[in-house]
Amino acid sequence: MVSEKMYGLGTKKSTIRTIFEYGKQRAAVVGAENIFDFSIGNPNVPAPEAVKTAIIDILNTMDSCELHGYTVAPGDAEVRQTIAESINRRFGTNFAGKNLFMTSGAAAAITICFKALHEPHSGDEFLTFAPYFPEYGCFVDGVGSKLVVVPANTENFEIQFDKFEELLSPKTKAVIVNSPNNPSGVVYSEETIKKLAAILEKKEAEYGHPIFIISDEPYRELVYGGLTVPYIPKYYKNTLVCYSWSKSLSLPGERIGYIVVPDEVADFGKVYGAIAGAARVLTHVNASSLFQRVVARCVDEPSDIAAYERNGNLLYDGLIEAGFECLKPQGAFYLFPKALEEDDRAFCERAKKYDLLLVPGSDFGCPGYFRAAYCIKEDTIRRSIARFKELAKEYKG
Amino acid sequence: MVSEKMYGLGTKKSTIRTIFEYGKQRAAVVGAENIFDFSIGNPNVPAPEAVKTAIIDILNTMDSCELHGYTVAPGDAEVRQTIAESINRRFGTNFAGKNLFMTSGAAAAITICFKALHEPHSGDEFLTFAPYFPEYGCFVDGVGSKLVVVPANTENFEIQFDKFEELLSPKTKAVIVNSPNNPSGVVYSEETIKKLAAILEKKEAEYGHPIFIISDEPYRELVYGGLTVPYIPKYYKNTLVCYSWSKSLSLPGERIGYIVVPDEVADFGKVYGAIAGAARVLTHVNASSLFQRVVARCVDEPSDIAAYERNGNLLYDGLIEAGFECLKPQGAFYLFPKALEEDDRAFCERAKKYDLLLVPGSDFGCPGYFRAAYCIKEDTIRRSIARFKELAKEYKG
Repeated sequence: MVSEKMYGLGTKKSTIRTIFEYGKQRAAVVGAENIFDFSIGNPNVPAPEAVKTAIIDILNTMDSCELHGYTVAPGDAEVRQTIAESINRRFGTNFAGKNLFMTSGAAAAITICFKALHEPHSGDEFLTFAPYFPEYGCFVDGVGSKLVVVPANTENFEIQFDKFEELLSPKTKAVIVNSPNNPSGVVYSEETIKKLAAILEKKEAEYGHPIFIISDEPYRELVYGGLTVPYIPKYYKNTLVCYSWSKSLSLPGERIGYIVVPDEVADFGKVYGAIAGAARVLTHVNASSLFQRVVARCVDEPSDIAAYERNGNLLYDGLIEAGFECLKPQGAFYLFPKALEEDDRAFCERAKKYDLLLVPGSDFGCPGYFRAAYCIKEDTIRRSIARFKELAKEYKG
Repeated sequence: MVSEKMYGLGTKKSTIRTIFEYGKQRAAVVGAENIFDFSIGNPNVPAPEAVKTAIIDILNTMDSCELHGYTVAPGDAEVRQTIAESINRRFGTNFAGKNLFMTSGAAAAITICFKALHEPHSGDEFLTFAPYFPEYGCFVDGVGSKLVVVPANTENFEIQFDKFEELLSPKTKAVIVNSPNNPSGVVYSEETIKKLAAILEKKEAEYGHPIFIISDEPYRELVYGGLTVPYIPKYYKNTLVCYSWSKSLSLPGERIGYIVVPDEVADFGKVYGAIAGAARVLTHVNASSLFQRVVARCVDEPSDIAAYERNGNLLYDGLIEAGFECLKPQGAFYLFPKALEEDDRAFCERAKKYDLLLVPGSDFGCPGYFRAAYCIKEDTIRRSIARFKELAKEYKG
């Protein structure tokens, strides 16, 4: 009667959702302040005041029919030009408005790329690196293609290149890169990006067709300790950049982002055209006309990352003190420490005894680890450390 | 390298787009005031002041993280409840928030329904009635199914039931109804809806499975001369209602609407679940969190239809005076008169000589007619009548 596959996708509860609901029930018993919920990756820094100012100013100055009317499908030309110029200032690129396609957030952006690139019945594949955002699987599957996952390099969560080369094949349509990474919080180094580019160029020559990088980078601005995030189009020409202001301006619910298609991609017209077609059939043309204008006005607004950096360091120090193995916070708002037993699901279950709500690494294709989102109150993190210590003590016997 | 199908869909210019661009070039020569552009169906009535007031009030009173944060996938529970209650007041239904799924507009809503209902490799089909919105074809094709078109009843643009019955088959998954209709401007009568329901119920019994009605109704409030638009769930239980505030609040660029899934559909849980899954893979969960709140506040705001009604009557009277055959304006903001020669494309080409920009009926699956959108300045319509008369004179010799 309906698509069983869609029914399954719409009704199977995600682990994160299940944990979230458990947390609400438990809060009713012990009080919300006694729940240490590290499960949800939702910005807890308010949108900058500039967003509100921009909205009100736009409402007061623009003609209503123009403001709330349809823009052209890829987004308002002036908005795209403004954003392109901001990217150029930051990364020394040379984009114009025609290189951008506005989307309702990064999830839409990557899915439009999948739909644009996937050739039905070709058996093509999209590759990504564990640990990875589990929705990639749904989105790639939803357009009819297949997601291939390169196992995690748990030493430093950079790319495991030998396994990557093994899994590359003439079927590889594109490689999804997510740095700063959800869930590991790792930022790929320039060396990693250069090596990735070199391997892909070699394989492109060998296979005689392009292999795209789809750079999913909603966390680009959330980096700590003075790290920089290499801008991949500068290292590899067949790169499509998918961006969202969800995190940088704390606007996840407003669904506003873009795709960059550089002039340098193999056949710009073909790729941009296919993206326009994919956006059309996925009914993602004309992202919110108000929020297009809002992000254009706020395009150089600095992101307020101080709270995240403070939280990340606080949690990291506490976990190390409690005896966990963990990499220092680099980006996004996640830590991805090693679980204290091999079975990460059992570990996260046990953590619940201390009202510590954590997400098993298995959910991100990386068993034996867990994700702790630190976009929560500083005080909650501070008070959680004693709980982590108690939990660790259980394992030390 | 890319999907050729998506490339084709993204680059083939629509007739409307081509006319629109011609109009801009021509305006540079003869002046914008001398172009009579009836091609674009874009609201020209500003959004009510209540929309602006609601936005500013929400910005000033709601916590930023809550306001701009993710809502649950189907939309904020309170928003959905508010909208359900408004629908109940208007149509005597008995919906609750759980019957609604918020979407980014009506195009997304219907496409989510197509994706939710379509069973891959089953050969299922979606039926609609000419004249019809041509994007239906792309959207149905995009999810992998097939659109079957029932030829137009050009006498009154109601449904041609004998042809409809011939085209119904066990493969029919759903029937798309669009009333008030784009492009005919016709509102289906209660009698039509009752007859449609009776046929579908008979066929459901015969085939042993549900046949859904997908009611695409972004023009519901735009009706004239005291007509009412029957609320289809009251006549037929397997109805999914797809709505958008694009026209009623003049917010087409903000992409905000909903799907109603009544309790009465065959297996509510299955259908709602499949819709949730389809929205997920199409990356259409969590419609704009600000605009969800805005439409909830403006849910009982009356639509400003006076200007459209005045325009429709003015154009209708003028066309009749010029010797055209045309139905009286009933709803939406379109007239769909008979072309003055059989070849509607040739007719629209000839109209360009008088700077009358019209869309051939062939684009809507109904040759021999043309669409004139009257959501433009009253003065433009007034001055266009002489041009229509000159055009008609050409044909009378």
